[in-house]
Amino acid sequence: MQGQYKALWLDKDNNLEVLDQRVLPFEETTVTITNTQETIEAIKNMTVRGAGIIGNVAGFGVYLACRESNGDIEKLIYLAEQIRESRPTAVNLMWAVDRMMETLLNSDLHDLELTQELLEEAIKIADEDCMRTEKIAQYGADIIEEIMLNREIDTFDILTHCNAGWLAIVDSGTALAPIYEAKKRGINIHVWVDETRPRNQGANLTAWELSKAGVEHTVIADNTGGHLMQNHMVDMVITGADRVARNGDSANKIGTYLKALSAKDNNIPFYIALPSSTFDFTTLDGVRDIPIEIRSENEVKYMRGMDSDGEIKEFQIVQSQSPALNYGFDVTPARLITGLLTERGVCDANVDAISEMFEDLI
Amino acid sequence: MQGQYKALWLDKDNNLEVLDQRVLPFEETTVTITNTQETIEAIKNMTVRGAGIIGNVAGFGVYLACRESNGDIEKLIYLAEQIRESRPTAVNLMWAVDRMMETLLNSDLHDLELTQELLEEAIKIADEDCMRTEKIAQYGADIIEEIMLNREIDTFDILTHCNAGWLAIVDSGTALAPIYEAKKRGINIHVWVDETRPRNQGANLTAWELSKAGVEHTVIADNTGGHLMQNHMVDMVITGADRVARNGDSANKIGTYLKALSAKDNNIPFYIALPSSTFDFTTLDGVRDIPIEIRSENEVKYMRGMDSDGEIKEFQIVQSQSPALNYGFDVTPARLITGLLTERGVCDANVDAISEMFEDLI
Repeated sequence: MQGQYKALWLDKDNNLEVLDQRVLPFEETTVTITNTQETIEAIKNMTVRGAGIIGNVAGFGVYLACRESNGDIEKLIYLAEQIRESRPTAVNLMWAVDRMMETLLNSDLHDLELTQELLEEAIKIADEDCMRTEKIAQYGADIIEEIMLNREIDTFDILTHCNAGWLAIVDSGTALAPIYEAKKRGINIHVWVDETRPRNQGANLTAWELSKAGVEHTVIADNTGGHLMQNHMVDMVITGADRVARNGDSANKIGTYLKALSAKDNNIPFYIALPSSTFDFTTLDGVRDIPIEIRSENEVKYMRGMDSDGEIKEFQIVQSQSPALNYGFDVTPARLITGLLTERGVCDANVDAISEMFEDLI
Repeated sequence: MQGQYKALWLDKDNNLEVLDQRVLPFEETTVTITNTQETIEAIKNMTVRGAGIIGNVAGFGVYLACRESNGDIEKLIYLAEQIRESRPTAVNLMWAVDRMMETLLNSDLHDLELTQELLEEAIKIADEDCMRTEKIAQYGADIIEEIMLNREIDTFDILTHCNAGWLAIVDSGTALAPIYEAKKRGINIHVWVDETRPRNQGANLTAWELSKAGVEHTVIADNTGGHLMQNHMVDMVITGADRVARNGDSANKIGTYLKALSAKDNNIPFYIALPSSTFDFTTLDGVRDIPIEIRSENEVKYMRGMDSDGEIKEFQIVQSQSPALNYGFDVTPARLITGLLTERGVCDANVDAISEMFEDLI
């Protein structure tokens, strides 16, 4: 699979190489992951982030753990569990580790053969994600075309929060996949990119991805979307998700809920784009039961940027004597979601529709 | 009035000195304003900001313009008009300039005597604001006490957006005035401080003010308030306003509307605190008609912070090839506002209640 994906690939020694998302857009560097510890660190410190990529890295992480365990299955199970627990909100992470463990436990192979089998399974997980994003791209672009036909507008303005592009989900993302596809179809697309505090994934990653792809876009403070929607400057909101419950409640980057409220208040369609691996069918009520990760207050109090000498540095932006609190996600209630944009088509955000469309996976 | 207020005062030569709000919280320095041009610059570049302080500075600015005009009334009228137009959303600015001009046009004094009279009028404007904030403090703290009695909670959690403390309105602010008063009354207050992108007035100014006053507080990303409200961690939201229309629609720092939506969705009281000078009785429909200032995209793309050597610097946080758009304010529709907290008491946010309570001013 070398070179096949954009955000992660295998090197000649079958180590995992990933784009270091912490230093984009000012630097494009890679990090090589060779073992369990490095896998966990890359997930925890957000070298890699985004529901899909975390799942993929976790999948490859179990393969690396197997290589590291030298046939000691108990050690391998222990290491896989460590990977599984590295970030609490990311359901793809758990899903991918569980699937890798199932492969392991169903296999009668040992040592090198087993390692090879796990490598193939990790590649399969990523390949399947790839195919799903292609479907999401098509269904999403169809919706955009439909709305444009009904409204006779020249430029279609989409607002997105955080990054759910190819840096987040191989191979063209979830929320951004329909945008890339719409552009291919010749639609004039313009994207409002939420900065996405505190880690600025919108300003750092989404803006970078969109400019690489030549998609017209404008960065805005997270505070701005409400005003834009109130003033008819947004035709649709699409975000990704980190976990979607059986009832359609959707956990995504903190702040998504506020944009959903505003979309509802202004009758603007609000879509969550996700591959089916992001569903957590065992969680029945998302607002009540999805655990929300609290990350370090330093992500609020410090920021990375480029000084006037072109040097990338950490800067302090909140005085030391003030504490900060950093919830990583919030949960958007299903009632605010126009539809879930999945590889099987658009699904209403409620338990009946989800149960029907994904019956075989539940 | 030397030394009476905290954010601005007169020096021995009757020049205006103001705290430079652009470099807080890391540096406490002052800027001396001696003429019209410096007045306009201080307002435009946000050395001073906040509805009340802008009005006060504009008042003193007209006095400085008079001093500068050497008895040339036409020149003075021209300079006053320049001050009046320095920021479009700030109604107190226009109100203060108009009041100063009324004093001027009703006066039969000339030269030095006229200058002295305008100085006294500017001081009077600030003194009146002072008295209003004291009333707002009392009425606001009464509401807090009432809610606490009904709900039997130990700590009262208030969320605020931007800065509406004494850096914004002499002498203890609007939104923060009830907080300071509640603390005086012995209530356990904790404040969620929205960072307030793009200029970070919450992180830079509100957190600094609150820590100076020993008020417990926590800085959060602007994205976080929805999650906190959904999870019963906020008892009340109070913000200031830059302009409130006859129908109660309230313009305030961009992002206020999103917090109001979230408060409504979670049944949390949402108050706008304002002195009556912030009303714009001639604007009947705020959402439709309040003009919203667009500021430089560089306020989104660059940020000020302290590097690891303790140096305060500007650094770039959005890649150069991505444009940004920077609306300074949004308008919260009256239907989302629990009450307008004014020096005359709490007023319902609708045209009838406002017309009744402020009949003499309309």
